[in-house]
Amino acid sequence: MPLTPLPQIMFEPLVRGALLEDLGLAGDLTTNAIVPAGISATMSLVARQSGVIAGLDVAALAFRLIDSHVVFEPVHRDGSHVPAGAVVATVRGPACALLTAERAALNFLCHLSGVASATAAVVEAVRGHKAQIVCTRKTTPGLRVLEKYAVRAGGGSNHRFGLDDAVLIKDNHIAIAGDIRTAIARARAGAGHLVKIEVEVDTLDQLKIALTTGVDAVLLDNMSVEQLSQAVAIVGGRLITEASGRVTSATAPAIAATGVDLISIGWLTHSAPILDIGLDSE
Amino acid sequence: MPLTPLPQIMFEPLVRGALLEDLGLAGDLTTNAIVPAGISATMSLVARQSGVIAGLDVAALAFRLIDSHVVFEPVHRDGSHVPAGAVVATVRGPACALLTAERAALNFLCHLSGVASATAAVVEAVRGHKAQIVCTRKTTPGLRVLEKYAVRAGGGSNHRFGLDDAVLIKDNHIAIAGDIRTAIARARAGAGHLVKIEVEVDTLDQLKIALTTGVDAVLLDNMSVEQLSQAVAIVGGRLITEASGRVTSATAPAIAATGVDLISIGWLTHSAPILDIGLDSE
Amino acid sequence: MPLTPLPQIMFEPLVRGALLEDLGLAGDLTTNAIVPAGISATMSLVARQSGVIAGLDVAALAFRLIDSHVVFEPVHRDGSHVPAGAVVATVRGPACALLTAERAALNFLCHLSGVASATAAVVEAVRGHKAQIVCTRKTTPGLRVLEKYAVRAGGGSNHRFGLDDAVLIKDNHIAIAGDIRTAIARARAGAGHLVKIEVEVDTLDQLKIALTTGVDAVLLDNMSVEQLSQAVAIVGGRLITEASGRVTSATAPAIAATGVDLISIGWLTHSAPILDIGLDSE
Amino acid sequence: MPLTPLPQIMFEPLVRGALLEDLGLAGDLTTNAIVPAGISATMSLVARQSGVIAGLDVAALAFRLIDSHVVFEPVHRDGSHVPAGAVVATVRGPACALLTAERAALNFLCHLSGVASATAAVVEAVRGHKAQIVCTRKTTPGLRVLEKYAVRAGGGSNHRFGLDDAVLIKDNHIAIAGDIRTAIARARAGAGHLVKIEVEVDTLDQLKIALTTGVDAVLLDNMSVEQLSQAVAIVGGRLITEASGRVTSATAPAIAATGVDLISIGWLTHSAPILDIGLDSE
Amino acid sequence: MPLTPLPQIMFEPLVRGALLEDLGLAGDLTTNAIVPAGISATMSLVARQSGVIAGLDVAALAFRLIDSHVVFEPVHRDGSHVPAGAVVATVRGPACALLTAERAALNFLCHLSGVASATAAVVEAVRGHKAQIVCTRKTTPGLRVLEKYAVRAGGGSNHRFGLDDAVLIKDNHIAIAGDIRTAIARARAGAGHLVKIEVEVDTLDQLKIALTTGVDAVLLDNMSVEQLSQAVAIVGGRLITEASGRVTSATAPAIAATGVDLISIGWLTHSAPILDIGLDSE
Amino acid sequence: MPLTPLPQIMFEPLVRGALLEDLGLAGDLTTNAIVPAGISATMSLVARQSGVIAGLDVAALAFRLIDSHVVFEPVHRDGSHVPAGAVVATVRGPACALLTAERAALNFLCHLSGVASATAAVVEAVRGHKAQIVCTRKTTPGLRVLEKYAVRAGGGSNHRFGLDDAVLIKDNHIAIAGDIRTAIARARAGAGHLVKIEVEVDTLDQLKIALTTGVDAVLLDNMSVEQLSQAVAIVGGRLITEASGRVTSATAPAIAATGVDLISIGWLTHSAPILDIGLDSE
Repeated sequence: MPLTPLPQIMFEPLVRGALLEDLGLAGDLTTNAIVPAGISATMSLVARQSGVIAGLDVAALAFRLIDSHVVFEPVHRDGSHVPAGAVVATVRGPACALLTAERAALNFLCHLSGVASATAAVVEAVRGHKAQIVCTRKTTPGLRVLEKYAVRAGGGSNHRFGLDDAVLIKDNHIAIAGDIRTAIARARAGAGHLVKIEVEVDTLDQLKIALTTGVDAVLLDNMSVEQLSQAVAIVGGRLITEASGRVTSATAPAIAATGVDLISIGWLTHSAPILDIGLDSE
Repeated sequence: MPLTPLPQIMFEPLVRGALLEDLGLAGDLTTNAIVPAGISATMSLVARQSGVIAGLDVAALAFRLIDSHVVFEPVHRDGSHVPAGAVVATVRGPACALLTAERAALNFLCHLSGVASATAAVVEAVRGHKAQIVCTRKTTPGLRVLEKYAVRAGGGSNHRFGLDDAVLIKDNHIAIAGDIRTAIARARAGAGHLVKIEVEVDTLDQLKIALTTGVDAVLLDNMSVEQLSQAVAIVGGRLITEASGRVTSATAPAIAATGVDLISIGWLTHSAPILDIGLDSE
Repeated sequence: MPLTPLPQIMFEPLVRGALLEDLGLAGDLTTNAIVPAGISATMSLVARQSGVIAGLDVAALAFRLIDSHVVFEPVHRDGSHVPAGAVVATVRGPACALLTAERAALNFLCHLSGVASATAAVVEAVRGHKAQIVCTRKTTPGLRVLEKYAVRAGGGSNHRFGLDDAVLIKDNHIAIAGDIRTAIARARAGAGHLVKIEVEVDTLDQLKIALTTGVDAVLLDNMSVEQLSQAVAIVGGRLITEASGRVTSATAPAIAATGVDLISIGWLTHSAPILDIGLDSE
Repeated sequence: MPLTPLPQIMFEPLVRGALLEDLGLAGDLTTNAIVPAGISATMSLVARQSGVIAGLDVAALAFRLIDSHVVFEPVHRDGSHVPAGAVVATVRGPACALLTAERAALNFLCHLSGVASATAAVVEAVRGHKAQIVCTRKTTPGLRVLEKYAVRAGGGSNHRFGLDDAVLIKDNHIAIAGDIRTAIARARAGAGHLVKIEVEVDTLDQLKIALTTGVDAVLLDNMSVEQLSQAVAIVGGRLITEASGRVTSATAPAIAATGVDLISIGWLTHSAPILDIGLDSE
Repeated sequence: MPLTPLPQIMFEPLVRGALLEDLGLAGDLTTNAIVPAGISATMSLVARQSGVIAGLDVAALAFRLIDSHVVFEPVHRDGSHVPAGAVVATVRGPACALLTAERAALNFLCHLSGVASATAAVVEAVRGHKAQIVCTRKTTPGLRVLEKYAVRAGGGSNHRFGLDDAVLIKDNHIAIAGDIRTAIARARAGAGHLVKIEVEVDTLDQLKIALTTGVDAVLLDNMSVEQLSQAVAIVGGRLITEASGRVTSATAPAIAATGVDLISIGWLTHSAPILDIGLDSE
Repeated sequence: MPLTPLPQIMFEPLVRGALLEDLGLAGDLTTNAIVPAGISATMSLVARQSGVIAGLDVAALAFRLIDSHVVFEPVHRDGSHVPAGAVVATVRGPACALLTAERAALNFLCHLSGVASATAAVVEAVRGHKAQIVCTRKTTPGLRVLEKYAVRAGGGSNHRFGLDDAVLIKDNHIAIAGDIRTAIARARAGAGHLVKIEVEVDTLDQLKIALTTGVDAVLLDNMSVEQLSQAVAIVGGRLITEASGRVTSATAPAIAATGVDLISIGWLTHSAPILDIGLDSE
């Protein structure tokens, strides 16, 4: 399914914030001193590594908010795999504006492309299996809307966006409720009719209890591949199965081979390294 | 020199934003359904890996903004090295509040501790050399104030905070000015008396020109260790020397051994993996 | 299930906004001119009509934001049915502050109690049936978080909080997709594993198609009671049934008697009259 | 006198807020899954009831903030009476954008048209009398600027916009001052030269005192029609007379016939039901 | 009449803004490097000139927002005349916090005390006459609420707070309306019942026309003292007379002696020099 | 060196704030009542005094934010000296918009031109000397970015923009550190490699100590011209010398003649009177 762009209203405040963070009160001392106002330039956003691009609209807005005359022309699209050396987009306009906006634009683009690339690598690793790769709520503060988008750009899917869009019962909830059955019962009583309920299970015994409660999904946390296989067999397709726990591109194929529906990975959003993209003069 | 805490006014908007991002309009569906309002709890923030802590005040504020009755008691301080398994802080108060604030608090604490830990590792690698480890403007959008702080917590120093607090002349500026001498002359004419000027040089020839211009510092970009040694010799202490270009803990010692004053590293802030810290019931 | 209070962080900006809207730049000209600064007072928030209270924390904050010395003591709780004449809360402190905050506090309290009271009336009307009364996205701009809360205070439940927490396929979506089956297929492909899918059906034929697609819920829009009964029979408990379309307390019992799971009512949030509550000197 | 449009700067933050409230972090899950990006559509905003329109600029902005390519063409104007079934405006552009913005746009338009329609009904009821229909500060928190505008669109006038633009002495002020004469004297001493003073009187005796004090207006609160007639006679045109207290379209004519200058009605802004307007595919 | 303090909610955003403007991302580099965290201090806010104080609550908040442990003890009150050398307030707490907040706190206090002192000087100059000294809308952008307050602290009164709280018909309005009578007629038709109308007149002929129109006040702009005397005689107390046009303490007494009700002075808010107040170690 | 314009993103929030401050909730009562919507006008911004202009982009934005159809055509540029009577810019568009935006636009333009004009007068007074005229952090809260810009427009330079962009060691820091040497040593240890250090010295003895410490600049505070001459001789060009202390256009030439590098003047930003500029109908 194609990637839907984000309406600008959803990220414009972030871009304004990032630019103002960089400009401070004095603005771009270097460019203002060195680059005459009348000079135009065309520059290229060049990928220094191969990877998947995400955040072109965000980067474009950074340039345009510094000077509305800047023209940003994407060469690739969000979600595209590009080789090292690829020109991702060109940007032309007042040279001052290009240099002043450069870092803020790149900070978004490199970070989001990093998330997309990490996601795509794992998605590729499980190709042929039904397992979807999903991210978590372990996102960078303030950037969740963009990081979730970047995961989609990388071919992944999104788990919960927040505490508010589904019930996910974890260890601590079960501990306070007393047992898993009570926790689930309370959740079913309290949650709205369009709210799905997932419960974390650490053992196959817990899983068997969960299966009797009508939850929609189970989070199989930190289980071995063997346990996962057993869990999938026990579930027998009656609810959604999600594996989690420090999954990497290396370990993902075996996990996917167990037949789980989902593999959730926190590091896609909290620890993916950037995709290195630079701004080159033509 | 001891680490100065940040005034709360500098990060409170970020914490409010992160909490509201997680709460949405419906709030914590799971906790609200399962955890009765009257239950108190004491929980521990536990490091799952060894590393350096940063962001305790930020995490504490996340809990207190959900419920002002929460008591957050740090066991360690920002800047402390802790072993895997260490209790970093305890938090007690209404169980609901602890669970609702958990993820936002941890997202800050894990990210900032990740930056601090990455910094500390490189700082440790160059111990015995005079070189300071400094971060760059390649930060996560919106979080620069906190990431720069985390670098300090890890024993590093901060390079420019923005476009506004020093002049740093790069390739693109020199290209537009025509040559390095013109670029520097314009910068000296335009910059205020309390603004230092640094210029990026890619070759020893450029370095020799820079030395005649009265700049305060030179950025030796992507030079080999051998070139760096020559550059340091050429400079002879007349200005500050900074090495940059994909430096890691592995390559840092040799670079530091060349005698450069500073080693700047972008990935400390843009690509450091989190330090894994969790919230455990006691 | 008990009503969970909203964390203050979720409504504080709304209360600040409402106070500043009323204060303008000149503040409370009347009170400032007439009421000496040193005078304290105790006043009562008195219901002029019977109804269900919602918004006490919100009203309390309005007073405290004008003067932190004000003490707000609720006599009833959000969700309580109170008779006409009931003292809902007392408030004491500087008389100036009480009078200055009065209107902003009451505007919240009366509006939210109006929503809660309207909800409670319909909930009462369907008592004995399983049907839950739910509100919609037809809320007052800016106040959704509070109005959804007020519906819960009135004993109702919440449908979607926004476009983002479930899929609800309506006429216009089906028209663009071409037919209901295509629309649902696309939604299933695009929605995350924790996202439920509901589809609006206007005829029993559409309902029969929907039943074959694995959606989670059907919205039976503007059907007669007879049609609803047939629809419920056709569904046979295989998915959630929701009735909608200008339901009132008068028409709700017959609708509930059809056995639908949910009755959704837009006017609870967009057109409920206020519950009249005033501030009386003691 | 013609209705002056509001500058966009006065309501743009409200529209942005309403859209973000509806979009959350995940955006429009349904439309994004079902409606392909390239499809354009033309839709109509259709009044389901007769009434008076208000808020077309606000609704138009909601669409344009989702996609700047949307063209919103009003068929009627704010302040127009339209019959049930009337096309109020057409909107064309990317189908995705139309569906995503629909609810936020309608929530404004229906609410404001509801206020305008309620106002117009009372204005019509008193036609032939000099009495103006005015609204109060009993507005929906955050929406005062728009609701006051909607009252003007309905042919009404605005009473105070806030605590800051006139003095209105009420019961509680008089109680604290000790008597009505003292309260008025303090107000006259404290208020600026361009600030009018109105005082609430509950009895004809109070009215007679007020007449001797040079106030600009009297609020005749909750008086019977007979009392109002006597009050108007006593005043004899020397100051402005305002009647208030649960006035409806049914009771307004008799009140207007007493000769009062103004009839103020809180429910126009706090309890008017919406005017039902929908978005139809063409 | 005593000076009413401003609720903190009305100026807190300004104080937060001013502090963040000064702190940037790096904070107080000097104090952080030099002043150890554990050191407490008591310092005095000392007037370097005689004048009238305004803004103590604002300054106090600046200190408390940097560190909530700071204790700010006013020695004088807003509105007090103090001699050169007077200790206006003492402040004690962490030395770091005192030094970091100093400039933001003083920038408010010196500016507002400057406005109050300028006002007080003119008020003193016209003592014995009935004329009130009033400020205008020529205020510093963003600070109107505080500058208007400072004028009151200096013994002056406030003219309009904005475009929204009274009608003031000026040259340009009359020019567009065609003549003064038409302009006033339109204003009377359009303005609410609690809105006063003032009209600027440049000649005595215009004044005579204005007198027949029922306006509340006339602004006698840039008239000579002789013209003002004639104007006051013509008006004969039938409406409020306001003199304006580059009035100073030197020229004010003669103007006041003409018997005008008000003298409005733009420079009180746009050009008053600060009152010099410093922070001294004890 | 030419004056670099500020990116609009740096002042747009200030302009929006100033407009909303003036509009309140009711908007421009006078213009709305008197000026018909369809009337266009062309008006001129006319300097009533000679001076230096600053803030044209800011004023232009104020008009455009009220109505995007307004065309603002500058006749002069920021930094230009204009004679009394000069047309600074013309503005044409809907007459309503011109009158509604007038005061907010002029409040910025007059204030900033006042700062620029005051600066230019002192710059002119020291022409022929090398001394630069610099402003301080004694700025109007919220307007620092614009006031610093206005100083540049007047031909001056900027000292520190905030606490964050250089170290400036003052009396209070030295007092807490114990002595000047300790204070400087701590600053050197704590400050980053691109941060310059300036120290305030009150005596020639302190100056001699400072010279041995490697600071970058000395602030010679409140010294007589004779002391300044001695200080400059002692320094002998080894570091930057800055004179400060109630410098005026009258005293500046003698101070400049001592050979200091910089003269800093707080009143340029905190006490410069406005440059009177008005809006005239053509």
